[in-house]
Amino acid sequence: MKFCPDCGQPVKYLVPEGDQLPRAVCVACGTVHYENPRVVAGCVPEWRGQVLLCRRAIEPRRGYWTAPAGFLEIGESIHAAALRETAEEALAEVTIGSLLSVVNVLHAAQVHIMFRARMLSDRHGPGVESLETMLFTEQQVPWEEIAFESVHFSLERYFTDRRAGAEHQHFHDIVQPRPR
Amino acid sequence: MKFCPDCGQPVKYLVPEGDQLPRAVCVACGTVHYENPRVVAGCVPEWRGQVLLCRRAIEPRRGYWTAPAGFLEIGESIHAAALRETAEEALAEVTIGSLLSVVNVLHAAQVHIMFRARMLSDRHGPGVESLETMLFTEQQVPWEEIAFESVHFSLERYFTDRRAGAEHQHFHDIVQPRPR
Repeated sequence: MKFCPDCGQPVKYLVPEGDQLPRAVCVACGTVHYENPRVVAGCVPEWRGQVLLCRRAIEPRRGYWTAPAGFLEIGESIHAAALRETAEEALAEVTIGSLLSVVNVLHAAQVHIMFRARMLSDRHGPGVESLETMLFTEQQVPWEEIAFESVHFSLERYFTDRRAGAEHQHFHDIVQPRPR
Repeated sequence: MKFCPDCGQPVKYLVPEGDQLPRAVCVACGTVHYENPRVVAGCVPEWRGQVLLCRRAIEPRRGYWTAPAGFLEIGESIHAAALRETAEEALAEVTIGSLLSVVNVLHAAQVHIMFRARMLSDRHGPGVESLETMLFTEQQVPWEEIAFESVHFSLERYFTDRRAGAEHQHFHDIVQPRPR
């Protein structure tokens, strides 16, 4: 941030009184602007033992596979965001189940929250942000072509838990992008 | 947002191509600025059956009681934020335990993520944002003087689970502030 979103004048990074970190402070109106991580919400949709993945039509990671997920909007719950992203990216209807994972993607300033989900039918297809959608058995998952480390982590835990008949919550930190 | 944080020129709210919602788009440089909910992370610290609460020294809700919690910073995990807030607001050291609750505070554009926690000792005291800190048995909790509905919800579920010997995850949406 270089300019104040409220008044358009330059900001300076200063540690406000009583604070511990430098913040963008407007030199004109004095407003302190906090910058915080964003939430990504999504799910692993399942249909008769198979999981639904989307091949990305957009950058980053165009052409790679991911679970439906996207940025949480203002006024939206994380469950609603996971439902919406599944409808938008995979044209699929789901019931959101238990919490699967919370991954702190520190280098991207994002928190990825993933749920288990049940598809209501086998209907699915590519939304505008997807090239294709496909149901995969555990053995078929294209592990080397998963778009994001957080999704890779979540899918691994999903199957590990399913084999054990469990539904745990998994927490993970990603400090920097995995080398490709 | 009225002005572009990148170049200081006015923004207009428009629906960008391929998007569904109006976003702040700079009339000069064309940058699309997304506004998203913020994450608050905290915990319910326990010491020998009692929970640690803080009486707020700052607005909003000055003088009311809360569990230690605060905004997630860039580069910080939700566990680290809960630890840090507990150290800052209650001068207490804890081990973070299981996930207790995720509350979508829709009117405030916040997601509150609360954990169970164990205090490492009975040491605690007011940080700069607290007037006092105190350990409470379940019977002593000042339910009518809890600062935030999300904390009220989380504390209720905390004790319900503890009585049942369970550690569930609880999800809840708050649509508008509770009348006071």
